[in-house]
Amino acid sequence: MKFVLGVDAGGTSTRAMAVAADGTVLGTGRAGGANPNSHPPEEAVANLAAAIRAAHPEPAGASACVIGMAGTAKLTDPVVAALFDRTWRALGLDPVVILTDAEVAFASATDAPDGTVLIAGTGSIAGRIRGHRMVATEGGYGWLLGDEGSGFWLGREAVRATLAALGRDAELGPLATAVLAEAGVDPADRRLAWRRLITVANAEAPIRLARFAPLVAVADPAAADIVERAADLLVATALATRDPGEDSPIVLVGSVLGEDTRVGARVRAKLAGLDVRASSDGVLGAAWLAAVEAFGEDLARRPG
Amino acid sequence: MKFVLGVDAGGTSTRAMAVAADGTVLGTGRAGGANPNSHPPEEAVANLAAAIRAAHPEPAGASACVIGMAGTAKLTDPVVAALFDRTWRALGLDPVVILTDAEVAFASATDAPDGTVLIAGTGSIAGRIRGHRMVATEGGYGWLLGDEGSGFWLGREAVRATLAALGRDAELGPLATAVLAEAGVDPADRRLAWRRLITVANAEAPIRLARFAPLVAVADPAAADIVERAADLLVATALATRDPGEDSPIVLVGSVLGEDTRVGARVRAKLAGLDVRASSDGVLGAAWLAAVEAFGEDLARRPG
Repeated sequence: MKFVLGVDAGGTSTRAMAVAADGTVLGTGRAGGANPNSHPPEEAVANLAAAIRAAHPEPAGASACVIGMAGTAKLTDPVVAALFDRTWRALGLDPVVILTDAEVAFASATDAPDGTVLIAGTGSIAGRIRGHRMVATEGGYGWLLGDEGSGFWLGREAVRATLAALGRDAELGPLATAVLAEAGVDPADRRLAWRRLITVANAEAPIRLARFAPLVAVADPAAADIVERAADLLVATALATRDPGEDSPIVLVGSVLGEDTRVGARVRAKLAGLDVRASSDGVLGAAWLAAVEAFGEDLARRPG
Repeated sequence: MKFVLGVDAGGTSTRAMAVAADGTVLGTGRAGGANPNSHPPEEAVANLAAAIRAAHPEPAGASACVIGMAGTAKLTDPVVAALFDRTWRALGLDPVVILTDAEVAFASATDAPDGTVLIAGTGSIAGRIRGHRMVATEGGYGWLLGDEGSGFWLGREAVRATLAALGRDAELGPLATAVLAEAGVDPADRRLAWRRLITVANAEAPIRLARFAPLVAVADPAAADIVERAADLLVATALATRDPGEDSPIVLVGSVLGEDTRVGARVRAKLAGLDVRASSDGVLGAAWLAAVEAFGEDLARRPG
């Protein structure tokens, strides 16, 4: 029986799925994280192999295998690339198609070959999708140079708004109060609190500013302003990847863009009239793209 | 003969000046840096003492001593404060007034007791001056949280503009070309250059992005846009410290605000009609403030 393999290799876990040509799920597997940026390459390939073998006892029989993975840039390192190649040979898999997590997330939400994927978690980036592949990006510079509208950006703006509030004589609002509590800073002496908050923010890795991001959910005009600016920046980033009048799907991915988040709600409102979707499970996207690889666009069936 | 001591304690050198009541300069001294943030406190006080003794052989006879210093926050550390106190006692100086470099810079340019000091070097901050003292600040959050319009900010925007240019198909302009040359990145393969530039920017301490700041002087619309935004941000920061309709002096300090810089020129143009001045030598400001301490506002004479 013909089948394909889809794999979602994340930072904390790797999930694999074996799917028959008619869409029947034949098996699933799970192992530890396999992002080559955050795991030693040997550990990443061991987890990939374990998840794949758990999904199907004879992976060599697969008609196609698609792996979605963050940190694919690492695979340009020839030592890492050779290690991955040896792993595929040992599993009898040929060929293996490695895609970005963004491509797999887009495919998890739609059969459309073209569109936009907008990701906002700790970082932010938008991808232009053509023929199921990301052919260009907008943003994604990382926290030091960009990541507008991301969790890092939201947290940084929450701290900045608090510093500005401490510099004024007005009463501290709910956002400033929440930020100071999260930072463990006593607001009694404002000048001291201002200094302490800057010290606390700089005492940890910059990316840890993202811990203040959830606080923009409080009811406060300063928080609402941050949410609005984040949504504007994310929408602009997404639209920059699209042709004028393009009506293809826009797939939203990441903790900042959840349907129950304020930024997610504002982004959806600003994109009203366009085909906006939430990403689904990455392993489903990978399995469906593997089916497209093996059987073609018209014959591929989604798992289920 | 009555005299006062003024000291400018900088990061790379410390300069002291002994000035008679009539403004006659009696002596000057120079030693290594004495910023307690960037030097061990023992080294800082040794350099302060050396510069003061070189300016006058009997500092104990001074009617007042004013020291302008960046990093004064460090003096709240009781160990550091005790070390400084012992140094003053050994010199026979009492009292010593330690002010921020911003207060001394303001006094270097004007006799006015009230006004605004706007500083833009690697970082940026504005101070509200009342009675020769800085009573409030605007900005000055540091590179991670702010420093809008500073050298760090200009350099970061230059890199961001270059990343945006690499993402488009148009020809690279003078700014992008200069940034890639400074970063040592080959522009031939644009996608690769985009990745490399992000890697290079993140490979050094974030504050080192300031090395790209001078490149905004090239003739390029993208550079002009960055200069204009920097000037707008710096002007807004300065004006936020002032009362409505205030006509007191605004003193500009730092490498970004020099009269021969593009940002400095644009800031001056935007503040046209106000009393805008360039800071002069910090040691002159410190000596004049020492004269005010000793002899009062009306009797104090500027060195010269």
